[in-house]
Formats: sequence, structure tokens, C-alpha cells
Amino acid sequence: METEEVLHMNKGSGKTSYAMNSTVQDNIISVAKPATRKAIVQILCSSGPMINMTIADLGCSSGPNALRVISEIFDVVYDTSHLENRPTPELLVYLNDLFTNDFNNIFQSLPSFYKKQKQEKGAGFGSCFISAVPGSFYGRLFPSKSLHFVHSSSSLHWLSQVPCGLENKGKIYISKSSPKCVLDAYLMQFQNDFSHFLESRSHEMVNGGRMVLSLMGRESMDPTVPHSCYQWELLAHALMAMVSEGLVEEENVDSFDAPYYAPCIEEMKLEIEKEGSFMLDSHDAYEIDWDAGTESSSGSLGMLSSGERVARTIRAVVEPLFESHFGSNIMDELFRRYGELVEDHLSRNRTKYINLVLTLVKLTKCLD
Amino acid sequence: METEEVLHMNKGSGKTSYAMNSTVQDNIISVAKPATRKAIVQILCSSGPMINMTIADLGCSSGPNALRVISEIFDVVYDTSHLENRPTPELLVYLNDLFTNDFNNIFQSLPSFYKKQKQEKGAGFGSCFISAVPGSFYGRLFPSKSLHFVHSSSSLHWLSQVPCGLENKGKIYISKSSPKCVLDAYLMQFQNDFSHFLESRSHEMVNGGRMVLSLMGRESMDPTVPHSCYQWELLAHALMAMVSEGLVEEENVDSFDAPYYAPCIEEMKLEIEKEGSFMLDSHDAYEIDWDAGTESSSGSLGMLSSGERVARTIRAVVEPLFESHFGSNIMDELFRRYGELVEDHLSRNRTKYINLVLTLVKLTKCLD
Repeated sequence: METEEVLHMNKGSGKTSYAMNSTVQDNIISVAKPATRKAIVQILCSSGPMINMTIADLGCSSGPNALRVISEIFDVVYDTSHLENRPTPELLVYLNDLFTNDFNNIFQSLPSFYKKQKQEKGAGFGSCFISAVPGSFYGRLFPSKSLHFVHSSSSLHWLSQVPCGLENKGKIYISKSSPKCVLDAYLMQFQNDFSHFLESRSHEMVNGGRMVLSLMGRESMDPTVPHSCYQWELLAHALMAMVSEGLVEEENVDSFDAPYYAPCIEEMKLEIEKEGSFMLDSHDAYEIDWDAGTESSSGSLGMLSSGERVARTIRAVVEPLFESHFGSNIMDELFRRYGELVEDHLSRNRTKYINLVLTLVKLTKCLD
Repeated sequence: METEEVLHMNKGSGKTSYAMNSTVQDNIISVAKPATRKAIVQILCSSGPMINMTIADLGCSSGPNALRVISEIFDVVYDTSHLENRPTPELLVYLNDLFTNDFNNIFQSLPSFYKKQKQEKGAGFGSCFISAVPGSFYGRLFPSKSLHFVHSSSSLHWLSQVPCGLENKGKIYISKSSPKCVLDAYLMQFQNDFSHFLESRSHEMVNGGRMVLSLMGRESMDPTVPHSCYQWELLAHALMAMVSEGLVEEENVDSFDAPYYAPCIEEMKLEIEKEGSFMLDSHDAYEIDWDAGTESSSGSLGMLSSGERVARTIRAVVEPLFESHFGSNIMDELFRRYGELVEDHLSRNRTKYINLVLTLVKLTKCLD
């Protein structure tokens, strides 16, 4: 099956759904908040009063996080316009994700979202219009020169496809033991995808427009460092244990690889410079807990062990991908074993994700 | 429950789904095709080469009809640009329906839709971007001065709510026996809704922009003529027969009224003149078969009697509305009886729907 067809979060609101297991992604949105705030203020203050402002959130997913970013952006626009004593611009928001994303879920929460905005901000707040644009952000999604601000969180580390011709026996992502050709193939796929991303946005954004990109990455040039790939390593361990017990076919593991890449900032810089339409304004790296931290896990999730929480979080994101390859009948057992391996690992090691946050500015070109 | 929550077509693709029972609406799209074609050509030819063109389809629903209108609009844009030897503009399409509409269903057919467009029109066809904007078209949906063309089919006869304080015993819509206050209340609700519709669009459309509105209506000033209300009359008969057998509570029928109004062209003209932002360029009335005609009913539908086909068509549209009021357990029986009453009625009477098609042009105001 195509990557696009199976790369979507678990739907609904059950215990394995993304809606109930997206605290890690929520934390990631939080660390990017200052960069988002700064970018919006700079867009608003670098020009005369804006009549309208067009915003795109790429890889919005569904569940409570989908509208959280938009809500925060609206707050900054409102506060800044208020401070500067300007009318708030009309806001046009495009929510984007792949064709298989559960947009109905987002739309059902829109009436209460609009109501809350009106209550909080009153008549002084201009009109806001939220729309959905399904499709891959590795191609064109929006009309030319139409976007002022682009936001993307927890999405750009997903590749458009698994790198071609991988020979990565017993593994499902880059691993310490992966041959160099595997590392190269992953890097090349990322470079190819990210350059298409930049090129598409360069057509769609107005000059001076800003883009805040937040994604899983690494701090080392070495793509085999644990913080960049150990979550996949443990999933491969769980699968190989099931192979040894005859529950999973070995060739099924050999033929599966994750369409994922956690780049380092230097790899991203190189593509930004090559493409040439954007200036890298700032970049930061943040440590993110695998289990979203106990204090932030509310309700029933707070009762689970760290390992179980991590397993739930990962399952909510990758289950459709794994299900289409390995079948739905082994999912419970796979993620149960995975939870145990993670619990054991975290009791002996300090492993965090690294999340990169970059702010890019669309350059004015001589031709414009 | 709010009208907005229950006013949506039957979901999915089962035998009672809208997707499988929308031939009447398809016929209605067909009769409006010449008006749509003419409006698009006039937009394209009244200006210099357009860089982009923004189109909204209001009340798009889901199923096969949702993208059919868009496909036809793309054909006209492509053909006209080709004839005039101009580059095709970038097309931005907003599909609109209420928050409860099944947009996921439309999005799933988008990849093949895009592919077909590319195959048919080749590289000469500019980019097209399809998005969804959920919400009521009786309020603002889009940024100011952003739309060049607005299309709406089989939607504007749905009111934003049931008229207040109706006393319409044993009936569910305007009937020969309805007191005058019922007729007045329906007309007032339509006037109120349609004026909000026009006012919202007047903010959203560019000067010279065009709007093709296609809706159920009537040719007589009298709102009780059979072609305007007899489909509801027979549904009320079916319900009252079930009341007499103790299957439905009489007060349940008395307290239910359809949020629907089939206006005559004079009633629409009056609101257009009152609102003042649009010129009525043309209007026509078309007869539409209740059962979509036997020749156009394909597959299993073709095997059904006229009465059964009409019952299926109406059920696909109104079931969520009826279900929320009368309960889901009586739906099969209600629409079985309805089919029989329709069959009997059609064997003795020639009754058609009347569909109105109006083309409006957004006027340039002195203030612009």
C-alpha cells in the first residue's frame, strides 16, 4: 500500500486513539510556541495594518491538538493587534493533512471552537475562516503567493515513502548495525522530500512570510545515536522476539521499514541553502520525554507505567502503518511487548527525543 | 436538536445512503449546467487573463455529486482558456456544507479526481486546489472579496430552522389545509434566511462575480400547489396512518415540521432587490421527475417501482432529520408506506418537482 494511505493517526476516541494519546505531540507544540508567537508578531509588525492573513498548518492531524495551534495563533494575532491599536485582520486558516486524515473529527469541534473565540475575544476580533486542504505537503497545496504563515508540528519527519531498495535485515529503521547504504538511502529520501517541501512552499508564500517547522531530529551528525532511533530499535526487538516464537514471519520484518527520518540541523540547513528561497532565521533543539512526563499525563493514562504510556503514544501514531503490513491480529501483543521493553530500557537509560524547531523567512527574489 | 445537527444526507454507501440515491440531485445539477457554463465563460471573458479564480460550491454534500459540479467547472475553464489562447488560471475551490457533512468521503475520492484532471487536461491545465469549509451558508464562510464564482444546488430550499410557533396539526409542511399563519411563518423564515445568504455573499464576492443558484421552487404564487408540497403531504399521510395504528404518537407529528421552503421566483426577486448587492441576470424553471426517470436509474435502483425509487431518494435526504424526532425504529416502515402512497399517487397524477435556476451578478457599489 502507498505510504499516504496508511500514514494516519489512530482514529476515534478509544484507548488506542490518537485523540487520547497525543500528550507528547502536545508537549512538542508547547516548545514551539515562543517561535510561533515571535513569527506572528513579526509578520504583523513588519507591514502596515493587514486586512487579511492566511495561515496554513501542515500535518494538522485530528483530536485536541488540531485546533490548539490555531487557537494560540489567534490569541497572538488578537493580543498584538490590540497592543498596536490596529484592527485584527480577517484570518483564513488552511488545515492540511493527508487524504486519509479524520477531518470530520476536526469539523465536529469547530462550532464550539468558533463560539469560544467569540466569547473570549468579543466583537473586536475580526472574522476567522477555517478550511481543510487534504494532500501531501511534499507537493503544491495552495495558490501562488497566498500564505503569510506556515506552521508544521510533528509531521516533517514522516517521509513521502520508504527509501527504495533498503537491505535492513531484522531492523525497521536506521540502527547501529545498519549498513552505510541504509543510512545513505534514508538521508537521500529526506533530502528529496524536504527540497520538494521547500520548493512547494516557496511558490505558495508571500515574500517576508514566515514558517515555523517543528519535527523530530537529532543533535549529532551520526544518525545512529540512540535519541534519534532507539524507539524504532525497541519496536524491532519486539518484532524479532515474536519472530523467534513463530508469531511473525522473519521476511515480514526484513521487508518493513519506517517512512521516517530524524534529521540534524546541518542536513536541513544544506537543503534550505540549496533551494534558496528561504532564510533560516533561528533554530533550537529541545529534549522531549518519551512518556510525556507523569505530571502531564491526565486521567487513566496517569495510572500506566512509563513503558505502557510510551507504547500507547507510539501505537496511536504508527498502528495503521504496522497493521497494513503485519496484520491487525498481532497489534495488541506487539505493543504489549514493546511497552515492557521500553519500561526496562527507561529504567536503565536516560533517553529523550530531540525536537528541532526552525523559523524560516521567505526571501524576496530579484524576479519578484 | 439543532437543524444543523440533523440536516445531512444519509452517510456511507449502503442502499439507503445518499451516495446510492442521488440521481434526482444529479438531474438537477444537469439542468443548471448551461447557466453554470455561461457564468464561468462570462467571468473569464469579462477581464484580462486571470491569474487565479476562486470558486465556492455551497451545500456540496458528499457522494458522487460532490465533485461532479467541480469537474464540469474545470472543463469549462479549460475549454474557454484554450479557445481564447490564454493560460488557465490557478483554481481554488471551496466545498461547503454543514459541520456534520461527510467530508472524509469527498476527500477519499480526491486523489483519483486530481489524477483524472491531469490525464484529461495535461500540462496545459493550471494548478487546482480543493478545500473544504464547513459551516452554515446563512452566515459568513469566506474572506472578504475573495470569490469569483458561487454555485449552489439542491441546498437553498433548506431553512436554517423550522419557522417558530407553527400550529400545523397532522402536517409536516405547508398543506392545502394549513392555516394562513403557517404559510406566513414559512415565507418569513425563507426571507430571513435568504437575505442573510445574500448579505454574506455580498461581502465575500468580488465585483462582477457570478452566482448560480439552483433550488426546489414553484411556478405559482400559491405555496400550497401540489408540485411544491405534495412530497411532504404524502409523508404526513404515511405518518398519520401510523398514528391511527398506534405506531407513532400524534403529538410527535403535530410537533414536527420540515425546515424547508420551495419559493417562487417573485419571492426571491423581492429579497434580491431589498438586499441590493446583486443583479438577477437570468432565471429559469425546470420540471424534474420525482423518481429521476426510469432510464437514468442504473443498477439495482432500476428494478424498483417508481414509488420505491422516490421513497429511497427522499429517505436518503431526510432520514437523519426524521430519525432524530421519531426514532430510528420506525424508519423502514415509514418509508415502505411512503413508497406505496407515492406509487399510488403517481399512477393517478402527473406531479413533478419544479427546480429554479437563477444567475446573479455582484454589482459594483459606489463605495467600492
